[in-house]
Amino acid sequence: MSNYNPVELILAKRRGQTLSPGEITQFIRGFMAGRIPDYQMSALLMAIYFQGLEASEIAALTKSYIDSGSSLSFPDALLVADKHSTGGVGDKISLMLAPIAAALGLSVPMISGRGLGHTGGTLDKLESIPGFRVQYGIDEFKSLVEKHGFALVGQSDELVPADRRIYALRDVTATVESPGLITASIMSKKIAEGSRHLVIDLKVGSGAFMPDLEHARELAALLVSTGESFGQKVRVVFSNMNSPLGLAVGNGLEMIEAIEYLKGNPLPDTKLLTTELVSQLLISSSLASDSGEAAKLIDGAVASGKALQKLEEIIIAQGGNPRVLQDYSLMGTASCKLPIVAKDSGYIQHIDCRAIGYALVRVKAGRMKVSDQIDYGAGALLIPKIGDYVRAGDPLGELLCNDSAQAPSVVELIRAAYRIAPEPLPREELILDIL
Amino acid sequence: MSNYNPVELILAKRRGQTLSPGEITQFIRGFMAGRIPDYQMSALLMAIYFQGLEASEIAALTKSYIDSGSSLSFPDALLVADKHSTGGVGDKISLMLAPIAAALGLSVPMISGRGLGHTGGTLDKLESIPGFRVQYGIDEFKSLVEKHGFALVGQSDELVPADRRIYALRDVTATVESPGLITASIMSKKIAEGSRHLVIDLKVGSGAFMPDLEHARELAALLVSTGESFGQKVRVVFSNMNSPLGLAVGNGLEMIEAIEYLKGNPLPDTKLLTTELVSQLLISSSLASDSGEAAKLIDGAVASGKALQKLEEIIIAQGGNPRVLQDYSLMGTASCKLPIVAKDSGYIQHIDCRAIGYALVRVKAGRMKVSDQIDYGAGALLIPKIGDYVRAGDPLGELLCNDSAQAPSVVELIRAAYRIAPEPLPREELILDIL
Repeated sequence: MSNYNPVELILAKRRGQTLSPGEITQFIRGFMAGRIPDYQMSALLMAIYFQGLEASEIAALTKSYIDSGSSLSFPDALLVADKHSTGGVGDKISLMLAPIAAALGLSVPMISGRGLGHTGGTLDKLESIPGFRVQYGIDEFKSLVEKHGFALVGQSDELVPADRRIYALRDVTATVESPGLITASIMSKKIAEGSRHLVIDLKVGSGAFMPDLEHARELAALLVSTGESFGQKVRVVFSNMNSPLGLAVGNGLEMIEAIEYLKGNPLPDTKLLTTELVSQLLISSSLASDSGEAAKLIDGAVASGKALQKLEEIIIAQGGNPRVLQDYSLMGTASCKLPIVAKDSGYIQHIDCRAIGYALVRVKAGRMKVSDQIDYGAGALLIPKIGDYVRAGDPLGELLCNDSAQAPSVVELIRAAYRIAPEPLPREELILDIL
Repeated sequence: MSNYNPVELILAKRRGQTLSPGEITQFIRGFMAGRIPDYQMSALLMAIYFQGLEASEIAALTKSYIDSGSSLSFPDALLVADKHSTGGVGDKISLMLAPIAAALGLSVPMISGRGLGHTGGTLDKLESIPGFRVQYGIDEFKSLVEKHGFALVGQSDELVPADRRIYALRDVTATVESPGLITASIMSKKIAEGSRHLVIDLKVGSGAFMPDLEHARELAALLVSTGESFGQKVRVVFSNMNSPLGLAVGNGLEMIEAIEYLKGNPLPDTKLLTTELVSQLLISSSLASDSGEAAKLIDGAVASGKALQKLEEIIIAQGGNPRVLQDYSLMGTASCKLPIVAKDSGYIQHIDCRAIGYALVRVKAGRMKVSDQIDYGAGALLIPKIGDYVRAGDPLGELLCNDSAQAPSVVELIRAAYRIAPEPLPREELILDIL
């Protein structure tokens, strides 16, 4: 084993040099083995933030993350596919996408995260279902996917432990926003979980961490090339996160919206995005030849009730109470319901989705720290999108929560997140581009 | 006490924002109190490396370093002065400067370091004197300076402990070479030790960490403005480090050269530089009105034997054996003496001082790690400077050591450090500029 000096490697990266795959592997291994301390890793991460990573370095980092733990391997006959979203406000697409994709013959080993800050997390939404279990070892996880066509779980300790530790360090050292590090973090998980077809919902706008399409395209190119270097087919859908997605923001409320979707009552924007994302997976895996055929298959899976049945099947398999599909009150209630009313007439010019996410944390619809408790009944229903016309006194939406003391100020914060002005403006496209 | 979030401060610096004095103070205090871990400090240091520090931030950092420990305070009547060198090869100036300055009425609380890598350290040179003690608490140190006009000691744990801890972290995270961090590190020590007049020997060239005068000027401006903001008078002498300084490189050998200097046998380059540096202190403290007067005073202090007497006085006061002044063999011997011979005739075009320093580490004239043992008798005597003419077969110098196995390869490495070519070139100036 060659003996790299960690300081020399940090120095090389600080100077903008490209590290070799062997150097990256040694650094990650040394870190995981405790020979390289956190303070050297965080210095390297900050140097990477400033100097970036070449494609070869990202591939080596991704491989090191994967090699730090176990990997899932499915039989070749299975069409293993998954979606990754870079995170938004009101993003409950996974809850529809996974059962629809499973109903259409894809195998979806979906590993999700928890909400933090202004963005929600799929795991929290699922846990609004009483009894629903999300922690599984990788063997159990694999069995669930093979038996039911999908599973909705949290990240196992066995999978990409290096990414877990390094992500935790990035979070407290202001080194999250690095395209190369983001790519390795996303792709290592998706490769280790055994996906061969991946669609990425890359969100752009006020509620996303990517402020503009140009930066999003750079990240997308890295995601695609990294996936390809591991034999994975990656497609990227750039979606608009200037307006909250769908109607509901909040865990139980989003779960209800997802169930209603699968019962045949989708909202226009969630339907558009879900259809686009599932279509990409169907075409990638040759289950559909074009988007027209894919859309028909998807509509059929919902209309026939098969997708809803798949959701019920996985709720039961993962220990949840399937009565939630009929009795939504099982997923949390709200003692306090307050209208959020427009003060002015005009067109919605801007929605500060991030501010809405943070406001809802105050009534426990989200969390600031990993240890914060969630109130599954808390959240908001938010009606207008950018470009919509509202009159003074019209409802922008409704706040639902169980904290009557906080409620009025949260209503005010959400109201303030909407900028209304007389000038009309075109409605924004939800799907900005596809790669 | 305000409650700064460390991640927010790292993020602000990463984005190139200027931190407030309060923010910097809180970060350093939090670090010293154990509330901010090493990995957040190293991330901040790397962000500082890339984004730099404004004058206000350097001043705040310097103050935080000083406030982390005790400070020395001398009576107003004393003219407290010191020199700092940024480190070179063969740099034994402190060993002459301190006794000369003390003989002329200055008080010199000189705190020095140990050698590391290619550069030597004054403490190691002093420790070639049997019994010489360098570790003192600040009260004892102060008494020595007040009684003898100077003292030659190592850094006390009581003085600028934040700098010690952060310097150690910079050393292992590739964040040493930051002008702002270097400035705070140098100036905090010199202010905390009570110096009112400071001259900095800022070395430029192949044996220095500053490769060119332009970068050196940037650092000098920061050093002067930071010193001034604490009421200190700072002068900077930019000196050439393309040729080793004097004749000797190695701890006992350099001590001998210094003693010979004070006995009235100085070498031309060490005399020029020592005189310039002491002159700046004499003029700064109004003990001389111009460089002519200063040079006369300095020559007198050496010719009268007063400077040598001061050295003897401090050797005795600090527990050393004063017989070294007569019997140089007490400071180490060399069983192995090998000539270093020029292979070609021509003019010395370039001397890789760094390579010479590293080569000598192999025979224990220096160290790579703090824990490495020094052989005080080991080193080299190196004759020609850049621009000198040598004939093939002429001696470039002599290697002295006690490791006959390593000796031949070290001779080869030193010989290879001299580039000789037929073209004559002007001798380089030793003093490049004065600020």
